[in-house]
Amino acid sequence: MARPIITLTTDYGTSEHLVGTIKGAILHVNPDATIVDITHDVAPFDVLDGALAIASAYRFFPPHSIHVVIVDPGVGTERRPLLVRAASQYFIAPDNGVLSIIYEQNDDAVVRTLTAEHYFLHPISQTFHGRDVFAPVAGWLSKTWQPASMGDEITDFKRFALPKPKTENGLLKGVILKVDHFGNLMTNLTPADLPNGMLKSAAVQMTVNDREVKRLVANFAQGEPNEPVAIIGSSGYIEIAVNKNNAARVLGANRGAAVTLAIS
Amino acid sequence: MARPIITLTTDYGTSEHLVGTIKGAILHVNPDATIVDITHDVAPFDVLDGALAIASAYRFFPPHSIHVVIVDPGVGTERRPLLVRAASQYFIAPDNGVLSIIYEQNDDAVVRTLTAEHYFLHPISQTFHGRDVFAPVAGWLSKTWQPASMGDEITDFKRFALPKPKTENGLLKGVILKVDHFGNLMTNLTPADLPNGMLKSAAVQMTVNDREVKRLVANFAQGEPNEPVAIIGSSGYIEIAVNKNNAARVLGANRGAAVTLAIS
Amino acid sequence: MARPIITLTTDYGTSEHLVGTIKGAILHVNPDATIVDITHDVAPFDVLDGALAIASAYRFFPPHSIHVVIVDPGVGTERRPLLVRAASQYFIAPDNGVLSIIYEQNDDAVVRTLTAEHYFLHPISQTFHGRDVFAPVAGWLSKTWQPASMGDEITDFKRFALPKPKTENGLLKGVILKVDHFGNLMTNLTPADLPNGMLKSAAVQMTVNDREVKRLVANFAQGEPNEPVAIIGSSGYIEIAVNKNNAARVLGANRGAAVTLAIS
Repeated sequence: MARPIITLTTDYGTSEHLVGTIKGAILHVNPDATIVDITHDVAPFDVLDGALAIASAYRFFPPHSIHVVIVDPGVGTERRPLLVRAASQYFIAPDNGVLSIIYEQNDDAVVRTLTAEHYFLHPISQTFHGRDVFAPVAGWLSKTWQPASMGDEITDFKRFALPKPKTENGLLKGVILKVDHFGNLMTNLTPADLPNGMLKSAAVQMTVNDREVKRLVANFAQGEPNEPVAIIGSSGYIEIAVNKNNAARVLGANRGAAVTLAIS
Repeated sequence: MARPIITLTTDYGTSEHLVGTIKGAILHVNPDATIVDITHDVAPFDVLDGALAIASAYRFFPPHSIHVVIVDPGVGTERRPLLVRAASQYFIAPDNGVLSIIYEQNDDAVVRTLTAEHYFLHPISQTFHGRDVFAPVAGWLSKTWQPASMGDEITDFKRFALPKPKTENGLLKGVILKVDHFGNLMTNLTPADLPNGMLKSAAVQMTVNDREVKRLVANFAQGEPNEPVAIIGSSGYIEIAVNKNNAARVLGANRGAAVTLAIS
Repeated sequence: MARPIITLTTDYGTSEHLVGTIKGAILHVNPDATIVDITHDVAPFDVLDGALAIASAYRFFPPHSIHVVIVDPGVGTERRPLLVRAASQYFIAPDNGVLSIIYEQNDDAVVRTLTAEHYFLHPISQTFHGRDVFAPVAGWLSKTWQPASMGDEITDFKRFALPKPKTENGLLKGVILKVDHFGNLMTNLTPADLPNGMLKSAAVQMTVNDREVKRLVANFAQGEPNEPVAIIGSSGYIEIAVNKNNAARVLGANRGAAVTLAIS
């Protein structure tokens, strides 16, 4: 078997020792693990943002990858730590909905609550379960591959639904889910939400933050200077972009901004 | 033997090639090393901040880990490069006190000055000893495990003491050592500084930056909205936090701010 | 053979899943690869900045390292993906000049256009070739080491020249190429541009942004407080620095600022 892969998605930032410390705690258990950062810049305490990050990345990893997802404002409370099997991979996270999109995309997910405390690092702090619970469990799972030994299956885990677009008066109404590093605006509209044929049409009638977007393009470079364009993004959502520029700044739009698309 | 682990703690940032280049210099010597970032966002030139970062992380790594710590405003001067053995691990750093907490926590530390220049990368620059001295030495140590071949023991290495809290008129007086990614304020007060029983009490009388903190809580979520609370942090220091918020912003406090705690 | 090394230099930032996702795509093909980040903070869309980053780092990596360089404003257009062999290493990048300094430093570079699409990840998105083209090709190359199977040699690849200093009226006139993490200003002047003997002289007559720089020093610590000094930087260019301070802020200078040096 190849070296086990353990990924990390957190809101810990990289300005301090936190991420390094959890890598130490993983390698202490299994020095052969290959650890991969997805991102540590999930918006602090923002479970939806963390859910989007891991959902965009996991399917590109090989089978048996172990994804540790820590956005955990409830650390130290009764919220449960989970171990989930889905899509031939594993997910370790607090039970606060941060795996909601994983559940949505994988009906057959098997969800366990982590109760076998002998896998944890003792004494367990009340503020850093990344180090004391999630990291050592990931390390042990990558050695033993015995999820059933770590806790029982549950069905009452927490999940939330992503905000879905609504149709009203010939308008599809959605929202900006995320602004990426380039300033591209990721909406919650997907190609599946559009009428047949619209994807082949270059002309669209969209508004973002009350500013018009008139063209659906195939790649960023087709946009004119300062022209906001729509594009099918790599995570499967429609995005608003400006060629070699920052759409969020050009449009004055941010996460949560309203989006409309005329479909009639 | 498992693959050797080499960690990096620097003030180099990640906005440029510097960290990648030192990883290249390590892997050039030992391509089997597993390299782990602790953090590269130590405050520039700030030896105390670097000392706190490595001190919070090292004990969670397995024995024989090699920790490279580069906060080095004196690069190119006569300040010596060091190789330290402590806590069954190794530390490679400039002799400017950045390992002070390691020395404080490990009376039996063995400190060597790195004089065996054939382990260095030549020509040695005057500005980037991370690449030319510390990285190749770490690579060679991870292959040969022969610290004695790299330089002689010394006892006149530089060290400083962390600022300690003082007691005055029934008040324990301390200072904010660090603001973390979430805005939590790490003080220099530890549970050992408190009178017996206070840890079990939920009520405390603290001030930070002249603002009152009235409760010691077990986890972040026990704080009311916008209420600053005290909590025992994961590095062993008392921290001031605000539930799902940024205590530094809420209290207008930063590193160096005064902290008091009534103990009578 | 040791584990293959694949490095990443991108303008993707680390605030999202993008970098983690391309690592997944590499490890999906070759789980034994060691992946190293050079930097992901190349200025967005800035091909020159990316060219400088990889050029500063690559020579410190071992032979056979594979360097993936993605600064790709033309993603999804007809611009070609390339696989380059130079300096006993490999480079994978879009054909937009981001490898110009590699070509300049290695006359014998062999440049291929990546046409063997069965190495790509399908369906190929129009916006994320890092994931769908560059990452899987790097993974496959690190397994097969068969560059000739991936595409034919070309000679009409894109390249640009770095801005060179000019001599005028006894003045060498250059420009700030880059501001580093510490605020040091990297010029495009090199020691080779200076008259014989000047390198041994401590006195220089330079201006940056119309502010005077009067001393060439051997290391940062020789600078007086707030004194801008010239120094031979670790990438081989003359830099302007301020001891334990941020030269860009002290001098109010930024990338593109004019630099002069009296040589008569």
